[in-house]
Amino acid sequence: MTPTITAFERSPDGGKGLARDTRVRWALEEVGQPYKVRLVSFRAMKEPAHLALHPFGQIPTYEEGDLALFETGAIVFHIAERHAGLLPDGANARSRAITWMFAALNTVEPPILELVTAKILEGDKPWSKERLPLVKDRVRDRLMEVSSGLNAVESSSHCAKRPVNILYSGSRLWWSHIRAPVADVAGGKPAEGCVDRWGARCGARRLGR
Amino acid sequence: MTPTITAFERSPDGGKGLARDTRVRWALEEVGQPYKVRLVSFRAMKEPAHLALHPFGQIPTYEEGDLALFETGAIVFHIAERHAGLLPDGANARSRAITWMFAALNTVEPPILELVTAKILEGDKPWSKERLPLVKDRVRDRLMEVSSGLNAVESSSHCAKRPVNILYSGSRLWWSHIRAPVADVAGGKPAEGCVDRWGARCGARRLGR
Repeated sequence: MTPTITAFERSPDGGKGLARDTRVRWALEEVGQPYKVRLVSFRAMKEPAHLALHPFGQIPTYEEGDLALFETGAIVFHIAERHAGLLPDGANARSRAITWMFAALNTVEPPILELVTAKILEGDKPWSKERLPLVKDRVRDRLMEVSSGLNAVESSSHCAKRPVNILYSGSRLWWSHIRAPVADVAGGKPAEGCVDRWGARCGARRLGR
Repeated sequence: MTPTITAFERSPDGGKGLARDTRVRWALEEVGQPYKVRLVSFRAMKEPAHLALHPFGQIPTYEEGDLALFETGAIVFHIAERHAGLLPDGANARSRAITWMFAALNTVEPPILELVTAKILEGDKPWSKERLPLVKDRVRDRLMEVSSGLNAVESSSHCAKRPVNILYSGSRLWWSHIRAPVADVAGGKPAEGCVDRWGARCGARRLGR
């Protein structure tokens, strides 16, 4: 059955692919799964019909027969479990890849979300100018940890057998999104290390739509 | 093989169970899996031996033979996949439970983390007093969405067949942690609705250690 996802009728980024439906589209394209897209307006996102699919009134959602999912992490994982190619086969390698997926969402993304909040929701506050550098520092520190961690993963014997599977499956879907804040934090200069290399590889890929 | 987890040598909360090892302990206790605990000092957390296990220099970690994991979401999911009782059996119900796990980590927790950051890292800043109510409002708004969403889940035909499995497996491990910020946000008065009921049920459970 062809799944249906939702996306912004008018994306705030003007279609640069920073909205979260990109993660889901990327996973679906990666495994060659056709899908339908239903565009949703900002008003419709907060109405009962959409809230029944997504209790936080956001996009994307994922509908497939009787199944309705939200949360990009859960949707991407759902796709990765049902199609070959996104998660490694070995049990330990798979668990490691899932670990990096959770890390992207629960450890790396929160400071980035705080930066977005500081700019969008508090950009007009009297403390904004003085506070923003602190928030950016926290993003930079976290990204440097990611970079060190991934360098270690790449060179460690623990995961050396499946570096490509671990680093470029499942988890890799997230890292292209980290690139934008990295460039922003570093004043347009890409951060060093693994994240940068990942970003370059991810950025080299273009969705067919 | 008995897994080994790490925890704070001296927990900042003085042992109230708010540190993240509680999530992992809870999952392990829930499925009856014995485990060892290695306590780590704040200094040791940032040294190479621990960073090799946890690239962000935090706790908990999870070691089981050749496998080393970090990220509580990944560790709890790893435990839930290998033991009965934490995730429902049906494929769709399982995917829904996983969705709520990701929601807890990537949608609900970030504003709570921002509140923690505002208090701990920015509590002494000149903007702290004026800004804190904004941060608390965002936590409250998100928790109200969770509450509405879970009420809807409980009463919807979509998930009604397995409400207990969905609501109190996997996902439920996280919700006890939301209670503390809820009480804080509401000035000690518990938030209304499902989150409150979950919190009460979760709080009624006591770990054996």
